[in-house]
Amino acid sequence: MSSPRSASAGKPEPFAPKFDAQGLIPAVAVDADNGEVLMTAYMNPEALEATRKTRKATFYSRSRQKLWVKGETSGNFLAVEEIRVDCDQDCLVVRVRLPKDGAACHTGERSCFYRKLSLSGPEKLEPVG
Amino acid sequence: MSSPRSASAGKPEPFAPKFDAQGLIPAVAVDADNGEVLMTAYMNPEALEATRKTRKATFYSRSRQKLWVKGETSGNFLAVEEIRVDCDQDCLVVRVRLPKDGAACHTGERSCFYRKLSLSGPEKLEPVG
Repeated sequence: MSSPRSASAGKPEPFAPKFDAQGLIPAVAVDADNGEVLMTAYMNPEALEATRKTRKATFYSRSRQKLWVKGETSGNFLAVEEIRVDCDQDCLVVRVRLPKDGAACHTGERSCFYRKLSLSGPEKLEPVG
Repeated sequence: MSSPRSASAGKPEPFAPKFDAQGLIPAVAVDADNGEVLMTAYMNPEALEATRKTRKATFYSRSRQKLWVKGETSGNFLAVEEIRVDCDQDCLVVRVRLPKDGAACHTGERSCFYRKLSLSGPEKLEPVG
């Protein structure tokens, strides 16, 4: 069985993100402390560059068609601790810290994923936990 | 400040997933035990229905243009514990269990996100942790 991590240990690999036909890459923001998924959005090259430079998660808003510094209106900035890249470099996981008692979701919930889909019976949504 | 969860407590909400122009919705598979992001992929309505029915994470392969039962060749099935839905219902988080010592990534890594992007200096990838 191949072990890519050991094979490449110590050797930095090139970063070659695959942006989609719209020039975007999905980014999953997770809590740096416990790994909980907080929200997902998209980055273009400029958003990724801004995120890396400012350490504030910055996305590309598809509806507004412009850069979107998460928290610029709500104050719920996402302070970036780490950016992880998947095996085929077409998705990012951004490990972030919310302000104390902050919310990543515009509804006021800490995470956008505050509901679950029933696994049996008719499809319906219920609050998580 | 509105509190959607309390406002809707006890009232099941309708499930109305927003599939994109290609008929797909992104799905983030996370470890049901610790929340770690394992992989991301896409579902179409059939994949979502199969996931819900079989409790094995099933995606739509954009490259092969067909349903893809994760693990059907490797044995690394993802047993579904819960499906979470985000605020605007255009993304899913699927909480799963891997087989013991299983790997979600085709490289043999447990998670596809086994590398991180440097936050300063030239862009390069390094193993996580």
